[in-house]
Amino acid sequence: MRPHRPLILVTNDDGMFAPGIKRLVEITSEMGEVIVVAPNSPQSAKGHAVTLADPIRLNRVKAFGDIEAYECSGTPVDCVKLAKNILLKRRKIDLCVSGINHGSNASINIIYSGTMSAAMEASIEGIDSIGFSLEDYSIEANFDPCTPWVKRIIEHVLAHGLGETKLLNINIPHPSLGPIQGMKICRQSEGRWEEEFVEGEDPRGQKFYWLTGNFASRDTGPGTDISALREGYISIVPSSHDLTHHRAIPGLKSLEEVNPTT
Amino acid sequence: MRPHRPLILVTNDDGMFAPGIKRLVEITSEMGEVIVVAPNSPQSAKGHAVTLADPIRLNRVKAFGDIEAYECSGTPVDCVKLAKNILLKRRKIDLCVSGINHGSNASINIIYSGTMSAAMEASIEGIDSIGFSLEDYSIEANFDPCTPWVKRIIEHVLAHGLGETKLLNINIPHPSLGPIQGMKICRQSEGRWEEEFVEGEDPRGQKFYWLTGNFASRDTGPGTDISALREGYISIVPSSHDLTHHRAIPGLKSLEEVNPTT
Repeated sequence: MRPHRPLILVTNDDGMFAPGIKRLVEITSEMGEVIVVAPNSPQSAKGHAVTLADPIRLNRVKAFGDIEAYECSGTPVDCVKLAKNILLKRRKIDLCVSGINHGSNASINIIYSGTMSAAMEASIEGIDSIGFSLEDYSIEANFDPCTPWVKRIIEHVLAHGLGETKLLNINIPHPSLGPIQGMKICRQSEGRWEEEFVEGEDPRGQKFYWLTGNFASRDTGPGTDISALREGYISIVPSSHDLTHHRAIPGLKSLEEVNPTT
Repeated sequence: MRPHRPLILVTNDDGMFAPGIKRLVEITSEMGEVIVVAPNSPQSAKGHAVTLADPIRLNRVKAFGDIEAYECSGTPVDCVKLAKNILLKRRKIDLCVSGINHGSNASINIIYSGTMSAAMEASIEGIDSIGFSLEDYSIEANFDPCTPWVKRIIEHVLAHGLGETKLLNINIPHPSLGPIQGMKICRQSEGRWEEEFVEGEDPRGQKFYWLTGNFASRDTGPGTDISALREGYISIVPSSHDLTHHRAIPGLKSLEEVNPTT
């Protein structure tokens, strides 16, 4: 009997020409049947956006030799929805991998990230999903040092499944930090963007604002993804689409007493 | 001494002409100093998208009499960032209210929702934030029955603060269900969208896909927002931007043993 070849969906938020997705395709195509669906334009920081008010286009492309690949005019979340419903006609997808993003998605960046939103969308559908990001924004980012790690992580997840969680946010330290020290299962660090808006005037004399800023960690204690990365470890945060702040429920019960009709 | 008039930021994802935001402005302007910053185009389902690659415009408008109001060309999250950094020059905002959305944001819809993403963005900045949504998509939705409840909730939060959580996802039952029965502090129900893509051909003969679908609850047990709404209660889910699946951490420790270099 022929062994089951897992069906793997590969996506990202940077499109087909990003070196990071090419590396994921190379790695996964050795392990199973791969289908690639990626945006046809950069979709960084698109969060969990979905295209409702416009038609979406899907075009077969020859981006990775014989591997089935499609460019999608929508968001990363749209890519996952179209892959599942249209291209794969609701066949069981064994794993979704998103990335490898050029730039970190550690800490609260998971919320803004198109890479992670695509992976989360698959996880909402019950598919084991992993988002990979490298702490290097450069188009020349070197994915060689992390490749054996990414390969082993995917093999492990295909063999054992993810269990209770369905989504991993995996970040890989900047190659300049030296050899990867190992992997750590972490919690999401608290952090925020310290924003600046550059103010300018367009050629018509109209004012505009352009967002820029720096990420600031507010919690780099033991067990956080940011601390693992700083020590040269790959950070792995099991993540959830249940946003309930469960611990806060009892403290809010007094609100239930509020009643304007009595 | 003049008592402190709280500073309240009002936003939404539907823009200034949505009756829901008008109602929030009416309610909050009796309680404090109000500034309104809302998108200049519909931004439903925009999730936590941020505008990085384009300039953003901000225009003062006379939408609500003398109340300071601005239309923003960006996403709901951009509205909050610009309000805080540019318009309010980082003054302390006492409360952010978003909505009242026309349509439910219960269950996993918090993840897709522009209304809730705006509120979450403010909560990441440490601001007590509430997203309000009414289970009625209609432009003619009747906000009268819920108005005294919304007012009392906002008064309560201004008086007592939110405590450990910083974000409430508040959904209001469809007016056709009859009088509001009360309020329940809930957890986010599990659910998913059962998607369909309508396939069509544009006038140039090119194929397109258009997303449609129905929300399906998969968990309507006691304590969930969906069950509260079905019983005619306002659902209040304390929510968090920490997406860590804390309970899943111990079960993943075996992954730390994986090491391709040994």
